[in-house]
Amino acid sequence: MEDERKARMGLAAAHDAGDVGLAKLIGEQGAVDVWEYLRAGQGKTAIARRAAQIDVDSLMHRTDQIGARFVIPSDEQWPTYLNELEWSEPVGGVGGVPLGLWVSGPADLSQLTAVAMVGSRASTAYGEHVAADWAVGIAEHGYCVLSGGAYGIDSCAHRGALACGGATVAVMAGGLAQLYPSGNSVLLEKIRDSGAVVSEHPPDRPPSRARFLVRNRLIAALAKATVIVEGALRSGAQNTVSWALSLQRPVLAAPGPVTSAMSVTPHRLVRSGQATLVTSVEDILTSVEPLKSATPDYPRDEPTALDGLTPDLAQVCECLPARRSVSVDELCALTGESAWSLMASLGRLKQLGFVAEVTPGMWRVSTRPSQATGSAQDALISPLS
Amino acid sequence: MEDERKARMGLAAAHDAGDVGLAKLIGEQGAVDVWEYLRAGQGKTAIARRAAQIDVDSLMHRTDQIGARFVIPSDEQWPTYLNELEWSEPVGGVGGVPLGLWVSGPADLSQLTAVAMVGSRASTAYGEHVAADWAVGIAEHGYCVLSGGAYGIDSCAHRGALACGGATVAVMAGGLAQLYPSGNSVLLEKIRDSGAVVSEHPPDRPPSRARFLVRNRLIAALAKATVIVEGALRSGAQNTVSWALSLQRPVLAAPGPVTSAMSVTPHRLVRSGQATLVTSVEDILTSVEPLKSATPDYPRDEPTALDGLTPDLAQVCECLPARRSVSVDELCALTGESAWSLMASLGRLKQLGFVAEVTPGMWRVSTRPSQATGSAQDALISPLS
Repeated sequence: MEDERKARMGLAAAHDAGDVGLAKLIGEQGAVDVWEYLRAGQGKTAIARRAAQIDVDSLMHRTDQIGARFVIPSDEQWPTYLNELEWSEPVGGVGGVPLGLWVSGPADLSQLTAVAMVGSRASTAYGEHVAADWAVGIAEHGYCVLSGGAYGIDSCAHRGALACGGATVAVMAGGLAQLYPSGNSVLLEKIRDSGAVVSEHPPDRPPSRARFLVRNRLIAALAKATVIVEGALRSGAQNTVSWALSLQRPVLAAPGPVTSAMSVTPHRLVRSGQATLVTSVEDILTSVEPLKSATPDYPRDEPTALDGLTPDLAQVCECLPARRSVSVDELCALTGESAWSLMASLGRLKQLGFVAEVTPGMWRVSTRPSQATGSAQDALISPLS
Repeated sequence: MEDERKARMGLAAAHDAGDVGLAKLIGEQGAVDVWEYLRAGQGKTAIARRAAQIDVDSLMHRTDQIGARFVIPSDEQWPTYLNELEWSEPVGGVGGVPLGLWVSGPADLSQLTAVAMVGSRASTAYGEHVAADWAVGIAEHGYCVLSGGAYGIDSCAHRGALACGGATVAVMAGGLAQLYPSGNSVLLEKIRDSGAVVSEHPPDRPPSRARFLVRNRLIAALAKATVIVEGALRSGAQNTVSWALSLQRPVLAAPGPVTSAMSVTPHRLVRSGQATLVTSVEDILTSVEPLKSATPDYPRDEPTALDGLTPDLAQVCECLPARRSVSVDELCALTGESAWSLMASLGRLKQLGFVAEVTPGMWRVSTRPSQATGSAQDALISPLS
């Protein structure tokens, strides 16, 4: 077990994460054999050269020193969701199950069910509001809010979860010794202290553009669904979405004003059928818990007064001019009804308080329908039944 | 021909539009026979009683008087699109091809290809901007902008089309003698003078709630596609959408902020699969002209500087610290590359102007990559190719 951990840590340090070939080789040969082969000076690849220089013991010491642990697939704390990366299509040439995860913080990743929330760093006030609001709702429903700890949407997602005492985890593109971006260090420390910060890189490896892309696969793979709140035309969030699609996990997108450049990517994803449009926490939960509420459930407004009338009575009401009284003859012409049927309708409407007989034979609309009498209520058809 | 016109006008005046049974009867028996049967005092229905009182000649005179014409299915100006109402499912118990259309204005409905734009009367500034902006684009592409002449989205749609000298038509829920709403009379007169106002009701019949619903079927039936810009939870626009779906015409919906009550109906329609999300005039045209551009085409941003580099060169650039110089050894550790391969990469990057050798063996990022030399450009891989 400790050999396996040391081999995986050494291998993680000797290569840059996301190497599909190495992940495959380790899956077939085992991490210990691959590590020993490389350490024995076999192979003239860059990874063999680096492997020769790595001191795993000092790396383990460094891991302890920064208060992190190195979690590997055989550990109880291993989030088994990640194993699906073994089968999913690589994105941009990278992929594979990570060799292990450096984790710092009290959260046990294997026990969390996470929803990823991603989006632009250059977010708008609207996107930030939506991200924080939905993160609160997701966290309050017992889900972990997963994101990348970046400025903009990521920060708002984490903050929303923290604000309601919920679980939140940030996946880093570099090692955990120096949390990136440094301008977010207060937030990232809060996330570490209450949830966890996670990386597949050794503690002192800095983030790089390539590592952000590789990191995105972990965000998608650790979450049941990925919500994209804002993203401009060329958005890093698209990469996370590609990972989620490769993993066949739901991608959910928040709409926004068509005039906002930051909503271009969510809208494009919805139009292309890659993402489902979501407008609320309830919509998100529908995708995360498909068996619980398979069809979206929309609240209904209060009915208007006329909603309660039968169609023939409502039509008579509609035909009455708003500001003057009319004779039954005129009303016959307006409605196409016979005088007899109109008289019956008018009598009923008077009873219900919708019309008043101003002088004999002259009718007008009542200022407000009476809602007082029980009999009037009984005559109404409930539009909600 | 004139018997047919008179019979249809008489029938239109004797019943309230949208009567599926009457439309079916006329389809089977012919308008002239049905009209003569009713006029002969046969049947004790409301429509027979009204038919007995109608003076078709004075109705024709009234039609002339208000500057309108009564167009029937056998006329060249008849918009044959409407005939699909014969087969479409009734919505809310009403339906059917109209008996005829009172038309006022220079537009020939049979020659127009229309896009309907509908939405809330209580629109937001955002919705109004989108409606007007898209209406301009739709009109500039040679389509007629069709709407209902109401306040809010309808008005903005008409105004957008008028602003660019485009065609626009308003379908009224009441007769054309008094254009409704009266607060929009200046706009409605402009529409009438340059395009047309249309109604299936005799000139002096007032609008009613039921007639708005019946009118909506004409908006959907006269248009190749219906765009809904804004609509609250209980929106009249939903009814127009139901008609478009019944006619199997595309329904297109504009997204908006999830925080806007006015975007609830468009979002719901997209989520339920009833509408396609559209974000631009181009998106709308894609649905109206499916053969012209079947897949949405998105513009691309300018590439960033690093986009042009091969992946191995880009990785070296990414690993260089932003604010200090590094030795080749340090860079070996950061990148996992051999010193030899790094030296080759650094030489190439120096050539391209991405890095500078500060002192022998110490490298840092260049402030701006040089774009001047032809050879540098040649080395770039175009991301757009």
